[in-house]
Amino acid sequence: MPERFDLYYWPTIQGRGEFPRLVLEAAEADYRDVARLSESEGGGVAAMMRILGGESDRPAPFAPPFLVHGDVVVAQAAEISAYLAERLGLMPSNEADRAWARTIALTAADLVAEAHDTHHPVGTGLYYEDQKPEALRRAGEFRRERMPKFLGWYEAILARGGSDHLVGRSLSYADFGLFQIVEGLRYAFPRRMAVLETRYPRVVALHDRVADHPPIARYLASPRRLRFNEDGIFRRYPELDGD
Amino acid sequence: MPERFDLYYWPTIQGRGEFPRLVLEAAEADYRDVARLSESEGGGVAAMMRILGGESDRPAPFAPPFLVHGDVVVAQAAEISAYLAERLGLMPSNEADRAWARTIALTAADLVAEAHDTHHPVGTGLYYEDQKPEALRRAGEFRRERMPKFLGWYEAILARGGSDHLVGRSLSYADFGLFQIVEGLRYAFPRRMAVLETRYPRVVALHDRVADHPPIARYLASPRRLRFNEDGIFRRYPELDGD
Repeated sequence: MPERFDLYYWPTIQGRGEFPRLVLEAAEADYRDVARLSESEGGGVAAMMRILGGESDRPAPFAPPFLVHGDVVVAQAAEISAYLAERLGLMPSNEADRAWARTIALTAADLVAEAHDTHHPVGTGLYYEDQKPEALRRAGEFRRERMPKFLGWYEAILARGGSDHLVGRSLSYADFGLFQIVEGLRYAFPRRMAVLETRYPRVVALHDRVADHPPIARYLASPRRLRFNEDGIFRRYPELDGD
Repeated sequence: MPERFDLYYWPTIQGRGEFPRLVLEAAEADYRDVARLSESEGGGVAAMMRILGGESDRPAPFAPPFLVHGDVVVAQAAEISAYLAERLGLMPSNEADRAWARTIALTAADLVAEAHDTHHPVGTGLYYEDQKPEALRRAGEFRRERMPKFLGWYEAILARGGSDHLVGRSLSYADFGLFQIVEGLRYAFPRRMAVLETRYPRVVALHDRVADHPPIARYLASPRRLRFNEDGIFRRYPELDGD
């Protein structure tokens, strides 16, 4: 297997690609963010679309993000993250912890899908502006019911484990999922998060610990970390927020 | 590790629990479907809720289905299925095929979430009857855009591989996901599937091959296979179907 990992994702948003990107950055891995490279470097969205369109000699994933590593093609943010974590020292070593870390990472992916659906409850093929009444209802339910349920679940894991980390006693890729979710929810629902964060101190503390992890801190301060925006998963539409 | 697997899921629906259940049944594994047992057998929904509520000495998953196997707790249908498949001879053996099988299984989980949202676009906390206009819009988008996209993706994998199976040359747990999705879509969207099935012959053939796999055929004919119903993920609401 080559050392280098090729990550493919939309070049202008954090989106789901940010979860595996955090694993790569935390491990200071040798990777290319292919769609963000120029075409002369073998990159660009066109290179990504050729694989998705089945025009390469590789199997075509359903959607970005996906990772190419030697003859391995793996898609789905949580699965890419697990694949990377196992190879980069960010997966717990014992079997029970590994299964639990994978469970936590996949549960984060569910939250991400639900956060996306607050602005796209009818379908991804339509603009937000064409599904605003539905979005208002869905976002209300998400803020009232789902955000406390997810954040409370994380908090309970941390309280029960008595550890600074979600799984075991050391940093694992499961922690990055929590970090990114807090980041995204703060961006999209600042008023709601201002209320909720007081209830989940362990979640906030772990978010901060991940942000201070030196390779992550360097990444966050670099131009490689894209800004949140209204093309991504977590979008700031003030009408969808509330306390 | 004990031989026996304990699967926990709502006792009256196929839902997401059906994906790991198919792996267990295909391998004729020793397992208990705990919430479907009586309380005197140590089962029932109450036993499941004790774990979910954090009242046991195990970590509490976010939601069913989950699996308990020795000191391992693993949740999320696709992750449970992968965990089982690795131990029951239904995971491909080489690394690239394993990563691709996991990718396919997780993509099926996305389709399941989208199928669920056709009747619950606003939120799981509300009744279908309270989100019917939104459901009509979402189901229309799902039938027109998403069903052909997912089914066409499977068809392309089968065409490209030139195999009777999604990954490699033999039956793997990825095939069960395709089987269950065809079953569910046929139940929920019979008119739409009557049109689409003519376009995806390889998908239909693989569905039939899985149904004829002897342990699966025995399972489908047994009382262990629950019927689809309007409490599950795939629901037959005629107003949400159309060709």
